[in-house]
Amino acid sequence: MIDRPTQADTLKRLAKIEGQIKGLQRMVQEGRYCIDIIQQITAVRRALEQAALGVMRRHVDSCVSEAIRSKSGQAKITELMGTIHQFMK
Amino acid sequence: MIDRPTQADTLKRLAKIEGQIKGLQRMVQEGRYCIDIIQQITAVRRALEQAALGVMRRHVDSCVSEAIRSKSGQAKITELMGTIHQFMK
Amino acid sequence: MIDRPTQADTLKRLAKIEGQIKGLQRMVQEGRYCIDIIQQITAVRRALEQAALGVMRRHVDSCVSEAIRSKSGQAKITELMGTIHQFMK
Amino acid sequence: MIDRPTQADTLKRLAKIEGQIKGLQRMVQEGRYCIDIIQQITAVRRALEQAALGVMRRHVDSCVSEAIRSKSGQAKITELMGTIHQFMK
Repeated sequence: MIDRPTQADTLKRLAKIEGQIKGLQRMVQEGRYCIDIIQQITAVRRALEQAALGVMRRHVDSCVSEAIRSKSGQAKITELMGTIHQFMK
Repeated sequence: MIDRPTQADTLKRLAKIEGQIKGLQRMVQEGRYCIDIIQQITAVRRALEQAALGVMRRHVDSCVSEAIRSKSGQAKITELMGTIHQFMK
Repeated sequence: MIDRPTQADTLKRLAKIEGQIKGLQRMVQEGRYCIDIIQQITAVRRALEQAALGVMRRHVDSCVSEAIRSKSGQAKITELMGTIHQFMK
Repeated sequence: MIDRPTQADTLKRLAKIEGQIKGLQRMVQEGRYCIDIIQQITAVRRALEQAALGVMRRHVDSCVSEAIRSKSGQAKITELMGTIHQFMK
């Protein structure tokens, strides 16, 4: 399960991303240059990837590790690989 | 420059994405299952890609097309390819 | 249509990629460390992206530009955006 | 370490990818339509992702799992997350 440090770190990242989304809305309303808008979307996309990697790290450190130690790792590893695959696309 | 339909469509997408980010914050605060959080981040990432593609389409339809018609397309095409490259990474 | 310089550049890139794939086959046969194999696959993936961007640049410079100049750009731009979307996933 | 089934599966995938690269070289030599070339590159890129995911799955099943069971999982998990991050970009 998600722990306090990961929770705090992820909430901080999401708060920043929410601010970036609001900034994007202003950029679109003001009719800013399309390339600048796309580059800002790219920045948000990377911030989301970082947030996902932080949660994934915690998940491997906790749920997946516990499952492996109790010899029931296969289902958790299959689920993790499926999630990585979806995220990659 | 961004036109009314693209502006309206992009703002609608961004408003939905903002809601998804708020939903993610709740999921993290409630300590929801890590895989569910990552899958929701994946969904937001795709929504952002769709928004970026909409703006890019408009950019090619307007700025890039006008530059090509006035025989000064090279700089705009170089800028576009650089932006696609950054977005792809 | 693809021109001589893009053709030569793309063939050079593909020849290098073919060599990297053969190198990967040796790595797998020799039972090399999984992380090293994955990192090499990542390198090939980026080389492929560069090759695709080179061809895309040429396509925008030629076919898409000609279509735009002859006022029939819409179909080409739709096709291009669909291809970028597929490539992004 | 990579096991026989993963080795066989990965070699089969790489042999197919090598064939696809040769096919791409022919397409470029014959001056085929740019969009067809890019779509074929997209297909190879996905085949590479599948190969990487197969090796990653094996790596988590073996090295990472063993490290976790012997209470030295942290370094392996950090390495894995770094590799996923690189692959994602």
